[in-house]
Amino acid sequence: MTQQKLQGIFTPNLVPYSADGSVNEDELRRYVEWLIERGVHGLYPNGSTGEFTRFTPEERRRIVAVIADQARGRVPILAGAAEANVKETLAACEYYASLGIRAVAIVAPFYYKLSPASVYAYFKEIGDNTPIDVTLYNIPMFASPIDVPTLQRLSEECERIVAIKDSSGEVPHMIRMIQAVKPNRPDFAFLTGWDAALMPMLLVGCDGGTNASSGVVPELTRKLYDLTTSHQIEGARQIQYDLVKLFDTMIYSAEFPEGFRAAVNLRGFNMGHGRQPLSTEQRTDITALSNELQCMLAAHGFTDQPIGGCPIDANAGGGEAEVSAIVQQVVAELNRRGLM
Amino acid sequence: MTQQKLQGIFTPNLVPYSADGSVNEDELRRYVEWLIERGVHGLYPNGSTGEFTRFTPEERRRIVAVIADQARGRVPILAGAAEANVKETLAACEYYASLGIRAVAIVAPFYYKLSPASVYAYFKEIGDNTPIDVTLYNIPMFASPIDVPTLQRLSEECERIVAIKDSSGEVPHMIRMIQAVKPNRPDFAFLTGWDAALMPMLLVGCDGGTNASSGVVPELTRKLYDLTTSHQIEGARQIQYDLVKLFDTMIYSAEFPEGFRAAVNLRGFNMGHGRQPLSTEQRTDITALSNELQCMLAAHGFTDQPIGGCPIDANAGGGEAEVSAIVQQVVAELNRRGLM
Amino acid sequence: MTQQKLQGIFTPNLVPYSADGSVNEDELRRYVEWLIERGVHGLYPNGSTGEFTRFTPEERRRIVAVIADQARGRVPILAGAAEANVKETLAACEYYASLGIRAVAIVAPFYYKLSPASVYAYFKEIGDNTPIDVTLYNIPMFASPIDVPTLQRLSEECERIVAIKDSSGEVPHMIRMIQAVKPNRPDFAFLTGWDAALMPMLLVGCDGGTNASSGVVPELTRKLYDLTTSHQIEGARQIQYDLVKLFDTMIYSAEFPEGFRAAVNLRGFNMGHGRQPLSTEQRTDITALSNELQCMLAAHGFTDQPIGGCPIDANAGGGEAEVSAIVQQVVAELNRRGLM
Amino acid sequence: MTQQKLQGIFTPNLVPYSADGSVNEDELRRYVEWLIERGVHGLYPNGSTGEFTRFTPEERRRIVAVIADQARGRVPILAGAAEANVKETLAACEYYASLGIRAVAIVAPFYYKLSPASVYAYFKEIGDNTPIDVTLYNIPMFASPIDVPTLQRLSEECERIVAIKDSSGEVPHMIRMIQAVKPNRPDFAFLTGWDAALMPMLLVGCDGGTNASSGVVPELTRKLYDLTTSHQIEGARQIQYDLVKLFDTMIYSAEFPEGFRAAVNLRGFNMGHGRQPLSTEQRTDITALSNELQCMLAAHGFTDQPIGGCPIDANAGGGEAEVSAIVQQVVAELNRRGLM
Repeated sequence: MTQQKLQGIFTPNLVPYSADGSVNEDELRRYVEWLIERGVHGLYPNGSTGEFTRFTPEERRRIVAVIADQARGRVPILAGAAEANVKETLAACEYYASLGIRAVAIVAPFYYKLSPASVYAYFKEIGDNTPIDVTLYNIPMFASPIDVPTLQRLSEECERIVAIKDSSGEVPHMIRMIQAVKPNRPDFAFLTGWDAALMPMLLVGCDGGTNASSGVVPELTRKLYDLTTSHQIEGARQIQYDLVKLFDTMIYSAEFPEGFRAAVNLRGFNMGHGRQPLSTEQRTDITALSNELQCMLAAHGFTDQPIGGCPIDANAGGGEAEVSAIVQQVVAELNRRGLM
Repeated sequence: MTQQKLQGIFTPNLVPYSADGSVNEDELRRYVEWLIERGVHGLYPNGSTGEFTRFTPEERRRIVAVIADQARGRVPILAGAAEANVKETLAACEYYASLGIRAVAIVAPFYYKLSPASVYAYFKEIGDNTPIDVTLYNIPMFASPIDVPTLQRLSEECERIVAIKDSSGEVPHMIRMIQAVKPNRPDFAFLTGWDAALMPMLLVGCDGGTNASSGVVPELTRKLYDLTTSHQIEGARQIQYDLVKLFDTMIYSAEFPEGFRAAVNLRGFNMGHGRQPLSTEQRTDITALSNELQCMLAAHGFTDQPIGGCPIDANAGGGEAEVSAIVQQVVAELNRRGLM
Repeated sequence: MTQQKLQGIFTPNLVPYSADGSVNEDELRRYVEWLIERGVHGLYPNGSTGEFTRFTPEERRRIVAVIADQARGRVPILAGAAEANVKETLAACEYYASLGIRAVAIVAPFYYKLSPASVYAYFKEIGDNTPIDVTLYNIPMFASPIDVPTLQRLSEECERIVAIKDSSGEVPHMIRMIQAVKPNRPDFAFLTGWDAALMPMLLVGCDGGTNASSGVVPELTRKLYDLTTSHQIEGARQIQYDLVKLFDTMIYSAEFPEGFRAAVNLRGFNMGHGRQPLSTEQRTDITALSNELQCMLAAHGFTDQPIGGCPIDANAGGGEAEVSAIVQQVVAELNRRGLM
Repeated sequence: MTQQKLQGIFTPNLVPYSADGSVNEDELRRYVEWLIERGVHGLYPNGSTGEFTRFTPEERRRIVAVIADQARGRVPILAGAAEANVKETLAACEYYASLGIRAVAIVAPFYYKLSPASVYAYFKEIGDNTPIDVTLYNIPMFASPIDVPTLQRLSEECERIVAIKDSSGEVPHMIRMIQAVKPNRPDFAFLTGWDAALMPMLLVGCDGGTNASSGVVPELTRKLYDLTTSHQIEGARQIQYDLVKLFDTMIYSAEFPEGFRAAVNLRGFNMGHGRQPLSTEQRTDITALSNELQCMLAAHGFTDQPIGGCPIDANAGGGEAEVSAIVQQVVAELNRRGLM
């Protein structure tokens, strides 16, 4: 039985919380429905956006079950399946396979920073024993990196490993991965998790993305995908520019994924409070950020303008300069330290 | 009820595994007994050395329960208590309090790299609700850093936060922490987790350490502690030199904590195979490493020499030059990147 | 007098040395002639490829004078003009203006890692006093970074600052710079110095590049530029893939710019020995590297195959796997440390 | 002819500037005289504190000549001798030898980040041809790092290489260097350039330091040296604590070495304006910083209190909390990125 290659934009959903801190399943179902209606190609629960580390193993399983039940096969599901060790991870894979989802995504081991040899050994044991297709998840910012030789070797030895999701955002790195894997595995899929580079990534050969922004503006990411894959460069470029602005604001102006949570609220959902406590000052900052985001979303017609209106630059919010300054300060610091 | 300040060397124990991958409780008890007999001042389960992230929540609780039962109050226990979120962490604290342990140690949130504001909010919620004394655990290599102003604020606002364990290894950073906290909280304890700097850390004002090496050569770390705290500088320096060599070999020549596991095996224990899979090549490397370590331990009289003997330099193993080259390569790379 | 916007590929030339370590001016002239004949849009002496830091101030001036004399206005020249301090740098600018070159490029201050405020103050003083157009040169790997707010402010305050050359290779960063500057300064030019991202950079709005590879395969970089700017995506992508392979091999397999020197030798020049001493082992490595490069160049018809021939993969050299492994090891280490 | 081992505190002097930006030789002589009178063990012109990169080659020679003339052999001089390449560096060595100075210090190549093999080749060529003793200068923050195997090999092959100055501030790294070199070269000297770790460095075996603070408070660094080397731990610790506070304030609150310049002005000198331009805001910040520093210096009796007085905490200035916050922010960011 051959399954279709992973392709298009898979939305890594945020999880809505009830007032008592539990998962708000009704809102989660409503959110999933809304995403499917707006044309996302697939869903991706238990990603970094989905705060998988902040749930118990039982909660992680429940979230996937709810989403699978709601999606009813209309779009493929890629489920984050990383647990405390290989044995627990394989048990989760068994469960997700039983739900009929398309594939799992497994992040490289984190906390300890492992060498390539250990990353290989970890995924090799999973790849040899998984009952479901596996997507490798490379996010060097948070977890041990999956380097190109490791990816190449795993792709050659484990046919159930069918894709890589890469959140490094580095275009040459994507080219290196494609060159190393595609000759032997033309079926292998390459997905980018870095929204600020979506257009160039698709143009150099990516098959799609798992992009947190698509949970906020699914219409925009879908349009960017369609324009880019049909090589309408000028149109795609303008949307990519807007997306960089929106993405930067959401990712650098608050603790991840709180900026995205604020934006999804603006689209009409009640995402509740995240499990990571926030200081009083942080809550105030998010209120200000929400106003900026509302102006950005209003410029695209996705929301009304906030009370008091927005500045003239249609694409910008009232304190855009300030938000931009914060963003640039973070990016500058990363640059200064040689991290970007 | 005032409890004694945390002081001295707390041993972060490795966990021995049975052939089926479960915790080998009998060997764990035997190991704990051996450590207490050799003079460690305290025990520290569920640390990084104890691979806390590779266990289920139930396993973590069980490990502490077994150790507490075996120790029977002869030495204080500091138990790692970090769970998936604040609610789960506080539940673990309740349980550890019920076991009568001295304090918990809670690592800063990891995977996501949090800002100081979020690290503060996280520990503040724990500090305000914990039923047991809390040690903050700063290990910037693996988790969100706890910076000095955050430490200072938490120490002033939460009296149940009584100590910090710092694994950065940076001596000036330790001085900055002591200066910021001690004037208002003379009871607060400062522990270093970086064995290669134990002597200088104690000399600038640290109260003790949580040192993985003390699980391998508890006699040596105890002697280093005693000589240093009594200002016998020359004697302490020589032991610190030897400890750097041993520690570097264990920490840089294999995936952490496998180098320590190999060394504890040489002291007469059967630690089994860790849960992180190793490649064939990695297993071979560990065998070679084990020979080096045996020569180092033999030079102190802790083991016999390996079959075939050791080179003349009493403090070195057969391939010392090679191991040293690997160590230096890693350190050089870190230096080159500005990370050390 | 309005001058044309900087556009296209400016070649940062290597400097050929005579046996006594002085600049080989005859070979330099022959090389410049060859580059112009092969269609480079401009020349860029005293860049990082041109080892500007390894010359005396007098030598730097002489190199530009020779190149300007040889080019005779056929292509514009961008001359690196950074000296020990602002006063010396402005004196160099005066001199280069007197030679009739198009613009200077000035790298941000290096050795000391300066804050954005200091980088601003440095370029502001230069921008206010320069007699010639200035290109800012951002290379965070080697020098203090020029962040987006600093760039924006300088572009608004100093009309003689007309371009930025960015060697970070980060596509989203390029987008951020364009968005920040272009609305107010449509004449401002954006050049990328990272060959492995040339195609995606041009597609998101770059005006050209200063690419060391264009000194080795000017035909290829010109073709990549032409195909990309005319949106022939599939064709451009294949050349970009080949260029990544070639660029990675030249940049990661030897101390920069020795890999490029070896490749230019293969194109029929005698570049001599660089001024940075090499160990015996390093010289041997470069000989092996030269064979790999010859196979890559032969696959494009730029050279004959080396004696002994090349492996079947037309695009690869005999030890390609080995070179690739080295490259990936370096990249993996950078990834591991979060530096890429 | 055997010369004495380098030992004690060598002061890396700041350079005073006249209003026209040239070196103020009279003030330089007065400053050198003042330092010698206050007991510094040696002088170290053309270090990072001495802004060697901001001078022309001729200026660098002149600075050393003036200082040597003023010192008249009363204390040994260690002169920074790094020039654009090996040939120019050796020419500088010849000149400094002719002035009768004790030794040169040569920083590892900078701008390009060189591998250990290249760093070795560079110093080997210098070590084999120098007419004067050489101190290697390791400052991985600014220049290519000198790793332990490279140091060991150079120390064994080049007898004219007699010392290393290390500014990494990492105590275990110092221990590794001493262990690698001392057995074969008991005459080799180890100097630390990181003032915040001076006491622990001396206690683990360092011979001295090249500490910018000693140009500001030579009385204090001398006392710290004397107390530490005579193992008066409690007294030394208190001074080290004070020194960390002062050093942190000078190094993190302004662009290096402007904080030190502000402090030396407070000791009665007219250091003028540095060559790196400052923004208006930066000049204001330095005025505020100067007030803080004056309070710190007044607490030790080195100056009067500033007009308006100082806060009660004798060791702190009016805005100490603010300065401390800035310092901690920088350090936190470095920690957060894993750089400290």
